[in-house]
Amino acid sequence: MNKKKITVVGGGTGTSVVLQGLKKYPDLELCAVVVVSDNGGSTGRLRDEFGFLPVGDLRQCLAALAHGDNEEDIRQLLLYRFSHGEGLKGHNLGNLILTGLSDIASSPGKAIEIASQIFAIEGKVLPVTESVVDLVIEYENGQVVIGESNLDDKNLGGKKITSIKLSPTSHIYQHAAQSIKESDLIVFGPGDLYGSLLPNACVTGFTEALQESKGKFVYVVNLMTHYSQTHGMTAADHVEEVVKYCKRQPDYIVMNNGIISPEILNLYENNQEYPVIDDLDSLTDGMVVHRDLISRVAVAQQSGDAVERSVLRHDVKELGQVLYQLL
Amino acid sequence: MNKKKITVVGGGTGTSVVLQGLKKYPDLELCAVVVVSDNGGSTGRLRDEFGFLPVGDLRQCLAALAHGDNEEDIRQLLLYRFSHGEGLKGHNLGNLILTGLSDIASSPGKAIEIASQIFAIEGKVLPVTESVVDLVIEYENGQVVIGESNLDDKNLGGKKITSIKLSPTSHIYQHAAQSIKESDLIVFGPGDLYGSLLPNACVTGFTEALQESKGKFVYVVNLMTHYSQTHGMTAADHVEEVVKYCKRQPDYIVMNNGIISPEILNLYENNQEYPVIDDLDSLTDGMVVHRDLISRVAVAQQSGDAVERSVLRHDVKELGQVLYQLL
Repeated sequence: MNKKKITVVGGGTGTSVVLQGLKKYPDLELCAVVVVSDNGGSTGRLRDEFGFLPVGDLRQCLAALAHGDNEEDIRQLLLYRFSHGEGLKGHNLGNLILTGLSDIASSPGKAIEIASQIFAIEGKVLPVTESVVDLVIEYENGQVVIGESNLDDKNLGGKKITSIKLSPTSHIYQHAAQSIKESDLIVFGPGDLYGSLLPNACVTGFTEALQESKGKFVYVVNLMTHYSQTHGMTAADHVEEVVKYCKRQPDYIVMNNGIISPEILNLYENNQEYPVIDDLDSLTDGMVVHRDLISRVAVAQQSGDAVERSVLRHDVKELGQVLYQLL
Repeated sequence: MNKKKITVVGGGTGTSVVLQGLKKYPDLELCAVVVVSDNGGSTGRLRDEFGFLPVGDLRQCLAALAHGDNEEDIRQLLLYRFSHGEGLKGHNLGNLILTGLSDIASSPGKAIEIASQIFAIEGKVLPVTESVVDLVIEYENGQVVIGESNLDDKNLGGKKITSIKLSPTSHIYQHAAQSIKESDLIVFGPGDLYGSLLPNACVTGFTEALQESKGKFVYVVNLMTHYSQTHGMTAADHVEEVVKYCKRQPDYIVMNNGIISPEILNLYENNQEYPVIDDLDSLTDGMVVHRDLISRVAVAQQSGDAVERSVLRHDVKELGQVLYQLL
């Protein structure tokens, strides 16, 4: 079978949903290019103590690409979170496994490769860079903070982010660049705009790889604004930032038009978070694809979660289908 | 191929050596029946905090039975020990994985079954019982201590152990009993006599399964005495204890006759530990098989080891061969 190649660029949960949605199609070859500037939660503790590449987003993508007879067991194993135990509480088993493998292997890329082999992952998971980097965030008022975890700090909420960059500057992992160049489709998002998506584009060589690629470039707009990242931003504002950092216009923009239930809207409103307003009609470049993408499956908060996770998700099947149709 | 079935009964390192030695033979079906009364080190900490079956010996046996393209990576992953990290230092990754799976799975047996599938283990690893039990040790002077980890306490060294039992009383795991009954060969040892071997025989139903089995029963005598367990005991003393607890005479006794280097003897002498004296000629029951079984491969102490591990080992290949020939 002559497989089509899709590279999904992003971070944790959003990218996992895309990968899960696409892995059902046997004629696809999937690759995830994953942000590595996380410094919070279990990942941050391990990064501080061991100095290896942050592993949390990589783990989520590996779990999403588990397949075969043991798919569900491997997914559960990698995502398992210790709810107690001195020093263990809050750690993900998958993070500990990737940390151990980082110590055993000769390079971060090799560690993930070994994990992919052991857990029979179908597809590739690649860090966007092999360097350990920090996210530097600058706000409209001139304030600068260092560390991706600040993007979850409600005290920094409501402020407009004017720029992000990585410190130190780092080069794209060559296999990630190659995958982007060789893909028929490059999917950007959904996911935290400043935490999971745009940091990938800050790695030297990313925009060049994206520009060189003959593959179509698709941006999936988030369902909701994030108070401490994208407060007040419309869909067009999101797209503008993507173009600014990626230096390429999306060929397609995927935008939800499904209705979110009042109960869930209420939950988000308590955190000053709202549906992203669709003002994409004003865009002439890029084709906007509207679809009801709301998952109706309830997402439980995991006990021991260091970070509050969104309860609203893109629907795995619908999102997979709409992206597959763009090939 | 009509495979012969071998069940190896014991604990950690000694049983691992037997499994590694035997797994090279494609016409064998291997099963490890593993002691679960450990309460020391990484295993003990996890047992205290989570209340699941102690996992350390099970992990070692799983690692020994890794096979295929990823054999070495899986072995390294399961045996990896964190040398630092708050709360992680001293923990084995394999122990953390089995603890997570114990939480995910419906039973201890199921947890190990899942691990065996995920890591493509060839053969079976079974706990001798699914109950969490403690080892109760009684000494000649009437002193009673509870907890297997006391067997490494040098302050309790040199004393004769008069009896061990498990508390609470527990029943043999049905699959372990079945494996013993169906085996062509049952290998007991090498390993800590009172810590890794005899506790298996203390589980209700073990001696019955062993008696019912038509398989040959082989006891592999340790190379050295252990100051806080078998100080001053000859080979015949070891055999006498095996018969007392197992309620069955070994069909074969495997005994080293190789020379141990003076340097290594010196290391052991510092801990008041000596080669087990071979007085087996006096035995009429059981056939004694003599062989040079000394491994000439240096064993490094692992950094972060909670317990001093023996630097002298049975040779994997030689021990495997001698046992295979007994079939």
